[in-house]
Amino acid sequence: MKLSEISKLLDGDLSGDADREIINVGKIESAKADEITFIANPVYEKFYNSTNAGAIIVSRRFKLSEGERRDIPLIKVDDPYLAFLELLDILTPKTELEEVGISEFAVISETAEISDERVRIGPNCFIGEKCKIGKGARILPNSVVLAGAEIGENTLLYPNVTIYQRCIIGNNVIIHSGTVIGSDGFGYAKNDDGTYKKIPQKGIVLIEDDVEIGSNCSIDRATMGETRICKGVKLDNQIQIAHNVVIGENTVIVAHTGIAGSTKIGRSCTIAGKVGIVGHIEICDDVIITAASNVSKSITKPGIYSGYRAQPQKDELKQQAILKNIVSLRNQMIELQNKLKNK
Amino acid sequence: MKLSEISKLLDGDLSGDADREIINVGKIESAKADEITFIANPVYEKFYNSTNAGAIIVSRRFKLSEGERRDIPLIKVDDPYLAFLELLDILTPKTELEEVGISEFAVISETAEISDERVRIGPNCFIGEKCKIGKGARILPNSVVLAGAEIGENTLLYPNVTIYQRCIIGNNVIIHSGTVIGSDGFGYAKNDDGTYKKIPQKGIVLIEDDVEIGSNCSIDRATMGETRICKGVKLDNQIQIAHNVVIGENTVIVAHTGIAGSTKIGRSCTIAGKVGIVGHIEICDDVIITAASNVSKSITKPGIYSGYRAQPQKDELKQQAILKNIVSLRNQMIELQNKLKNK
Amino acid sequence: MKLSEISKLLDGDLSGDADREIINVGKIESAKADEITFIANPVYEKFYNSTNAGAIIVSRRFKLSEGERRDIPLIKVDDPYLAFLELLDILTPKTELEEVGISEFAVISETAEISDERVRIGPNCFIGEKCKIGKGARILPNSVVLAGAEIGENTLLYPNVTIYQRCIIGNNVIIHSGTVIGSDGFGYAKNDDGTYKKIPQKGIVLIEDDVEIGSNCSIDRATMGETRICKGVKLDNQIQIAHNVVIGENTVIVAHTGIAGSTKIGRSCTIAGKVGIVGHIEICDDVIITAASNVSKSITKPGIYSGYRAQPQKDELKQQAILKNIVSLRNQMIELQNKLKNK
Repeated sequence: MKLSEISKLLDGDLSGDADREIINVGKIESAKADEITFIANPVYEKFYNSTNAGAIIVSRRFKLSEGERRDIPLIKVDDPYLAFLELLDILTPKTELEEVGISEFAVISETAEISDERVRIGPNCFIGEKCKIGKGARILPNSVVLAGAEIGENTLLYPNVTIYQRCIIGNNVIIHSGTVIGSDGFGYAKNDDGTYKKIPQKGIVLIEDDVEIGSNCSIDRATMGETRICKGVKLDNQIQIAHNVVIGENTVIVAHTGIAGSTKIGRSCTIAGKVGIVGHIEICDDVIITAASNVSKSITKPGIYSGYRAQPQKDELKQQAILKNIVSLRNQMIELQNKLKNK
Repeated sequence: MKLSEISKLLDGDLSGDADREIINVGKIESAKADEITFIANPVYEKFYNSTNAGAIIVSRRFKLSEGERRDIPLIKVDDPYLAFLELLDILTPKTELEEVGISEFAVISETAEISDERVRIGPNCFIGEKCKIGKGARILPNSVVLAGAEIGENTLLYPNVTIYQRCIIGNNVIIHSGTVIGSDGFGYAKNDDGTYKKIPQKGIVLIEDDVEIGSNCSIDRATMGETRICKGVKLDNQIQIAHNVVIGENTVIVAHTGIAGSTKIGRSCTIAGKVGIVGHIEICDDVIITAASNVSKSITKPGIYSGYRAQPQKDELKQQAILKNIVSLRNQMIELQNKLKNK
Repeated sequence: MKLSEISKLLDGDLSGDADREIINVGKIESAKADEITFIANPVYEKFYNSTNAGAIIVSRRFKLSEGERRDIPLIKVDDPYLAFLELLDILTPKTELEEVGISEFAVISETAEISDERVRIGPNCFIGEKCKIGKGARILPNSVVLAGAEIGENTLLYPNVTIYQRCIIGNNVIIHSGTVIGSDGFGYAKNDDGTYKKIPQKGIVLIEDDVEIGSNCSIDRATMGETRICKGVKLDNQIQIAHNVVIGENTVIVAHTGIAGSTKIGRSCTIAGKVGIVGHIEICDDVIITAASNVSKSITKPGIYSGYRAQPQKDELKQQAILKNIVSLRNQMIELQNKLKNK
């Protein structure tokens, strides 16, 4: 694509060779002559003189200092980062993610309802009885949707995803490979002889619109009712969500976090990686939990919480500072004891 | 199903409209007119007057107070919760989980031995050479069983399960999607140049009867001999079991727990979520390990253990109480130092 | 195989019945009469008199004491453990892991380039457009390789592996079941209304030669550029590697460890299980991080680091010793306070 075309797409002002051909985007440190890069953060201006990129997207406020090179085409825009993201999407080669059509190598129940608009169902997929697949939905190769499950419009399942029976996936949802939606909740009643009797898990998982779920996550179906992932939630990889959990709208959860049964997480929370949250508690809206924290009690006030036994971060930081110097504290104690002994 | 039929099934005493049609079960707060609910825990009695359910299962000891509604049918039984579970199983719609038959879209080696009684092998499954599939076994779509592996009677593999070569799965086992049984143990010998040489992992995984394993678990095959999951063990999701581990009968392990190589866990233990246990140790029978604990030494006495470096819970709780007030301890120290200085 | 043949293969010196037939290897405690075992560690010499094995591989320095049995054939070699590993590989029965050929039940794009030498592509696999599969590569049943991805020579993908579009897997790589290579990095920009906008993840994952990756791992593709797993790296199960991470040559990482975005790990590091490492930091070469540690700052000196907030292990051990006795420290404080009060 010519620089003149790119500049037009981005509503930018171009200086330099309008006919230069650009085929990809790149990082300023490593971009090649047929790639375009950007400067959004002044930290990266140090690469300005040395970059091999074919052009740079910069802010309208970007000014050249004396001695800086003049030989590289610039496109000035309001927000270089957003402009760059847009371009990233346009220039990247398309793949089967964009293909449409139902593969002859997919196995689809006769009673499944498949929209006839722009659906893709890849080879080796299985779609069970009475499933509903919405328009624009893309189910990539080797994914499985069991009986009665529903996949919303424009939703994308990557390969090797499993959706258990009767679970409901909303519109514009993305689910990455290896993720399992609707496996049985972990529930047993103990018998007198020490063995366990399985408690049937008869509810479902309900995933609302605009959710993205990373790879190899597990979201268990409810015992009764539903495990609910609300609108706009973003889950990273390898996350475990137990039965009957509710995750509020626009909450973001990072990899390796686990949430035990029936816990309710509020809206717009940020839960970092490797966090553990026990069952049957509530976390209110706008809570931030830092990485590797463990939460064992409900949180009722917005704020930042952290620690092996999570507490308000400011308390935790004070304690940590002392704990790091606990050897000194002990030594001071010995000193005092000696002083008193000598008196 | 009519209430009269349900009551009969549950050995209950019915009061109210015997002909009322019930099609599902529900929670007391949200059940609809064609659903039945239950009260097992007195906490839920507060919903008695307001529930929209079509009927309620209650204890034989349940008594109505003055002013409480009389218009809702009741079924009195010995144990409302158990009765409810039974009903849950009966009323929930059947799905392909109950289907029988070998799909024409499964790929099955000619040398595999498949029982001819009530087996299900779903589409896109692969069953390798000399595998044995017991009667009543159900292998749902897209699961893979490699050469020489054995699947016991009435065992259920959900979609996208992988069983590696020669592993043995007992009877009445349930394995959820994404779980991998028999991947290579993590073993290498370091060469002089810093590279690693793979130690062949030639053993198997042996899973005894009545085990349930959640989604996305990894259970590695032994270097030699076997990694063994004993009878009645229940594993939650995303659990990692390394090579040559043994998990004793009726032990329960919660999500995100990892157990390193050659460790032996006793019978009837409860290991909560996100626990780490190092390799080459033994945990005796009847041990409880609380969530997010790390165990680095053998445990020889039954009891409760907890903490970042697990120890008997009562010791750990005492330490935690002081650590939480470590700022105060430090301040008391400063106070003492000042007092002594002034003397 | 006859003992005489085995001894020759191992460059050993055989004493005892040269014609004895050996069909497998076993542990000294449990080996049977048609199995061979070994003694590398003197700890196992206690089993010498009682083993049922058909023969034992021992060191050339191995000497019999008075009263020890003379009836069991011995093969003396320089390094009994290495000899045993070699034999393990030779004696174990072959499975479809060694099969060659492209299954008629695989779905392969016409534009994919498949080497015609010794490739195996199992049933129910999907190979997308313009993929390249090198000679000797084995892709076991139900694995998926999306458009433009490349699989190197002699590389082995176990069943149910997913390789996303354009990712590059080197030569002699092993990837276990359930692992996902190239899922989107976890990146969003927050909108003013609290919802999140997805940042396109347009880079790839590059896996160099001689890497082994366990089951159910997730390695995310870079936003731009590449997430890179360098030559000789060994990853255990259930590991999470975020976008743009680099793992240096010959580094070993144990199960349940997670590494956040853009972090760079050096060469020849050993990272134990359940470790968390934050994003945007660097760990230098030759660092050891012990199990369950969390690393939140760059590490610039080789050495051993550990703890809930990782620090040099020797500092951490000192602190832990005091923390374990924190109750005593508090009691000494009270004693001092009382003493001073009484003065």
